[in-house]
Amino acid sequence: MRDVISITDFERKDLEYLFEKTDYFLNNLDKKFRILEGKIVSLAFFEPSTRTRLSFETAAKKLGADVIGFSSAEGTSVEKGENFADTIKMLEAYSDLIVVRHRFEGAARFAAEVSEDPVINGGDGKQHHPTQAMIDLYTIYKLFGHIDGLRYAVVGDLRYGRAAASFIYGLALFRPSIIYLVSPPLLKARREVIEFLKSRGVRFEEREDLGEVISDVDVVYMTRVQKERFPDPSEYEKVKGSYRLDLKLLERASKDLKILHPLPKVDEIDLEIDKTSYAAYYKQAFYGVPLRMALLTLVLSGE
Amino acid sequence: MRDVISITDFERKDLEYLFEKTDYFLNNLDKKFRILEGKIVSLAFFEPSTRTRLSFETAAKKLGADVIGFSSAEGTSVEKGENFADTIKMLEAYSDLIVVRHRFEGAARFAAEVSEDPVINGGDGKQHHPTQAMIDLYTIYKLFGHIDGLRYAVVGDLRYGRAAASFIYGLALFRPSIIYLVSPPLLKARREVIEFLKSRGVRFEEREDLGEVISDVDVVYMTRVQKERFPDPSEYEKVKGSYRLDLKLLERASKDLKILHPLPKVDEIDLEIDKTSYAAYYKQAFYGVPLRMALLTLVLSGE
Amino acid sequence: MRDVISITDFERKDLEYLFEKTDYFLNNLDKKFRILEGKIVSLAFFEPSTRTRLSFETAAKKLGADVIGFSSAEGTSVEKGENFADTIKMLEAYSDLIVVRHRFEGAARFAAEVSEDPVINGGDGKQHHPTQAMIDLYTIYKLFGHIDGLRYAVVGDLRYGRAAASFIYGLALFRPSIIYLVSPPLLKARREVIEFLKSRGVRFEEREDLGEVISDVDVVYMTRVQKERFPDPSEYEKVKGSYRLDLKLLERASKDLKILHPLPKVDEIDLEIDKTSYAAYYKQAFYGVPLRMALLTLVLSGE
Repeated sequence: MRDVISITDFERKDLEYLFEKTDYFLNNLDKKFRILEGKIVSLAFFEPSTRTRLSFETAAKKLGADVIGFSSAEGTSVEKGENFADTIKMLEAYSDLIVVRHRFEGAARFAAEVSEDPVINGGDGKQHHPTQAMIDLYTIYKLFGHIDGLRYAVVGDLRYGRAAASFIYGLALFRPSIIYLVSPPLLKARREVIEFLKSRGVRFEEREDLGEVISDVDVVYMTRVQKERFPDPSEYEKVKGSYRLDLKLLERASKDLKILHPLPKVDEIDLEIDKTSYAAYYKQAFYGVPLRMALLTLVLSGE
Repeated sequence: MRDVISITDFERKDLEYLFEKTDYFLNNLDKKFRILEGKIVSLAFFEPSTRTRLSFETAAKKLGADVIGFSSAEGTSVEKGENFADTIKMLEAYSDLIVVRHRFEGAARFAAEVSEDPVINGGDGKQHHPTQAMIDLYTIYKLFGHIDGLRYAVVGDLRYGRAAASFIYGLALFRPSIIYLVSPPLLKARREVIEFLKSRGVRFEEREDLGEVISDVDVVYMTRVQKERFPDPSEYEKVKGSYRLDLKLLERASKDLKILHPLPKVDEIDLEIDKTSYAAYYKQAFYGVPLRMALLTLVLSGE
Repeated sequence: MRDVISITDFERKDLEYLFEKTDYFLNNLDKKFRILEGKIVSLAFFEPSTRTRLSFETAAKKLGADVIGFSSAEGTSVEKGENFADTIKMLEAYSDLIVVRHRFEGAARFAAEVSEDPVINGGDGKQHHPTQAMIDLYTIYKLFGHIDGLRYAVVGDLRYGRAAASFIYGLALFRPSIIYLVSPPLLKARREVIEFLKSRGVRFEEREDLGEVISDVDVVYMTRVQKERFPDPSEYEKVKGSYRLDLKLLERASKDLKILHPLPKVDEIDLEIDKTSYAAYYKQAFYGVPLRMALLTLVLSGE
């Protein structure tokens, strides 16, 4: 582990090792560590984020590192016309590790080529958000004790949503029983994702209605279907009900069903669900800090 | 003390205990403490602030805590449509204490209900800014040795200004000789504030002209009267002179009069006054750090 | 050394002492120091900056200090109409040292008058950016072993660019062989700068074309010529080729020529140059942290 660019660069044994380390930090969350004392972590968030940024910041500080950076491109030298490579080289000069968030596909990998410091992808383009996928998989591992053999529905915008795509890539490193890819036709999973599933021999089905599969799954991974994705608003109106979870729909689900969501959510999950045992998304967010602590430790120790 | 939502939730003995602790930190301001080492303090400032935010941040860091958060709702998941409760739950997952600043009345109390971490109100709505009131009262305690028995004028926008309202609530926990509530008719103190004064048996008078009372008070608490509050600009022009302090007006005041102001001030206090012995507002700002150190310590130690 | 406002307030022996200290921190960049533990450094950036701000922040944190502040005037009390002196007094109350960046000439010196804490100018107005000049001079000292006796071209906007003006002031504290001031007529060095060079007996020539001097210099200090400076865009089109460095132009230069740039750069240096041995600007940026560590230590220890 040097750079963390895509979940597909890893194998299940890497992730299992990461989960072990995560367990350790989860059990010692109250402790202030000095493991990364003297290290500077740069957060280069060219695109806004709250959860990813603050959990990386919290993780770094809990390990004794200091944190610098920016939380949007506004007011930085990028606005003065500086090229991306120069901004990355500046951060490389000041720090020991760079977390990059960018709206362009490939930005993190390019940063890793430019920088001799390790680079972690904090989400770029429409497919890659590897640390989110690690957290998602860890959450399932904590809930069920294993990731293999479960039935999954990944729901919503599978075309532009990087969290959903990364989660699917991540599942394909394990042996899921089946993955239902549930989306409107316009927002189906990208060809690269589908090819990856096939190359790994993962069983999957593409569906359009969550209601059809809700009774057949152990995990629902929800993401938002944004109205703006639809060229014609009436198309959106037609499908939106199929991508919204409420208690009525859950009547047909297994009592042990768990709902994940990368958050923030808007209205794709009814608020009534928040307090039920179905809701695993707050726990999932909570795991962001210990998992990122484990990851920072592994990357900066060169393990 | 778990949550700090309104100054009215406290009694004078709580504040006196807080002042004692504040004295301790004031006398040891050069020291770096490790009392809160390993703790993370979240600053959730949905509404901008400089003084409150930076003094909380300074206080937390001087105690050895780390600080995360945001200084405006811009660029956060709130802009993506996340509900307030989910944002608070995220911060709860990452940190040990949350300071909330919000323009809506009741936001801090709601955050405290949602969060198992203690919540401190960094100012919400039009009435509550409890830590500012604590600093104001501490300043008077340091200047005069006591808060009881003094004559106060609270001046300016008593209707929309949360610092003024909280200060009046705070005075009512002690035994002031009298409080003059000096404001334009449109900006008079809210009914809740008046009721509280009555319920506590505090003597007060509502006035419209600072000049009428300036010679009869020991403390003037100035706040700004904003032009925007007046539906008719000519109404503002008529009254503005009555809510501006200059040396001429102070000729009629006691030589020992002290002027407080929650800051920032714009032009409601003539710049000539800044260097006189009347001006207590810079000292008041200075006390922000040791008082917030004391408060953070008490809240996080569960005392 | 108490305040650091202008490079002209220093003498070469001060800078040589600073360079010695910088060498020490450069050789110990991996270490976390506790020299400034318990100190708070304020970054008061009323005008955006990335490099200066982040390298001060990194330097302070590597020394064990804590950092507070703001990275633009937006969302601060300045926007509510607070005067500059009150903002500085607030930071003075919370911290031990203030770094000021402001677009107005003299802002840093005024801050130093208002504040009892030491103030470091992080760049104000059109002439002063003393810590940038220190880094520039240190870079030359590291590259050549000495600053005296070399031939310099300072290129670009010498009228409005504070980095270029400060670098020229800084060179005049040493004994350069010659300084070519290369700029379009509209962007020639200010009279104060010229007078300073004369008063120090420094040999210099004003030129308009970099090509004419490129073969006669050891160091080129590039800065950007901004189109917006020209009242008539066609004037800009006429001159822009003379203020752009590419490999073709460098064919006529000494093999040992070094190119400095305060960064960020836009297109005034061809990207092909970045990887050649001419390019000293990434190293220059890298020295920002150890030099500012040395400076913070000297200022806060009162040396």
